[in-house]
Amino acid sequence: MTDGYGPRLSVLSEEECYRLLRSQTVGRLGVIADGYPLIFPVNYVMDRSSVLIRSRPGTKLTAADRQNVTFQVDKINSVEESGWSVLLRGQGEVVSAGPRDAIRMSAERSGLKPWVPGDDFQLVRVIPNGISGRRISPSSVNDWWWDTGAYM
Amino acid sequence: MTDGYGPRLSVLSEEECYRLLRSQTVGRLGVIADGYPLIFPVNYVMDRSSVLIRSRPGTKLTAADRQNVTFQVDKINSVEESGWSVLLRGQGEVVSAGPRDAIRMSAERSGLKPWVPGDDFQLVRVIPNGISGRRISPSSVNDWWWDTGAYM
Repeated sequence: MTDGYGPRLSVLSEEECYRLLRSQTVGRLGVIADGYPLIFPVNYVMDRSSVLIRSRPGTKLTAADRQNVTFQVDKINSVEESGWSVLLRGQGEVVSAGPRDAIRMSAERSGLKPWVPGDDFQLVRVIPNGISGRRISPSSVNDWWWDTGAYM
Repeated sequence: MTDGYGPRLSVLSEEECYRLLRSQTVGRLGVIADGYPLIFPVNYVMDRSSVLIRSRPGTKLTAADRQNVTFQVDKINSVEESGWSVLLRGQGEVVSAGPRDAIRMSAERSGLKPWVPGDDFQLVRVIPNGISGRRISPSSVNDWWWDTGAYM
């Protein structure tokens, strides 16, 4: 499936977007703070269709709780000029202490790094409202541009 | 310099942030649209302390023009669990046709990919208001977490 800009840029299905999200361990959380769309690299695991992120208290936690956030993952080969990007839009939610312990155990089983006892971490969940993704294939030569004008 | 979370996370100087920005060719533009902090991978070049991005007309262009935007670049080694991230906050500006030709030539000399005649590109400049960056060193073992709570 192409988006009208030529065959080089293909739109990913929702299923493919989630498959790619499950394939990585580092992504980027987008939050709005002080009127800016801040971008923070984070480790994460998927919990069904939600994203689980560990965070210390701070800007990104405050700005994520019960707010519109995004979670973005990409893998780009700048030599081959190929790659993909997935953008999940959702609602951020700081997980409270009770559910946190259950989620923590589940998350550790899923590969989210363990943390030391007494660590002042918080767990942020991103509940999806929508997801989209694009892939650029290596056969797209010469003049491809990673253009996501039709992203939304 | 550390940020109080231990020696694993170091704060980058402004000079180092710009050096790292100049070292890469793919970054992520953050814009606010429909109440979400959208994140788009883009190719870019630096023009002194500004970021130059080529874009087709669309969501990201409209959302970037004369608005608060961010530009983020990182390089993360998920095996070594090391890496860095730089976040530039600034004002987006769609460059109008006149100055665009001059900037385009300059940008092409700087390595921004050329585009075909008649292409409906626009050029977006991000004029910096502030920049910050973090580095995690590989010696940070076991329990490091890419935490940017003190980012701002």
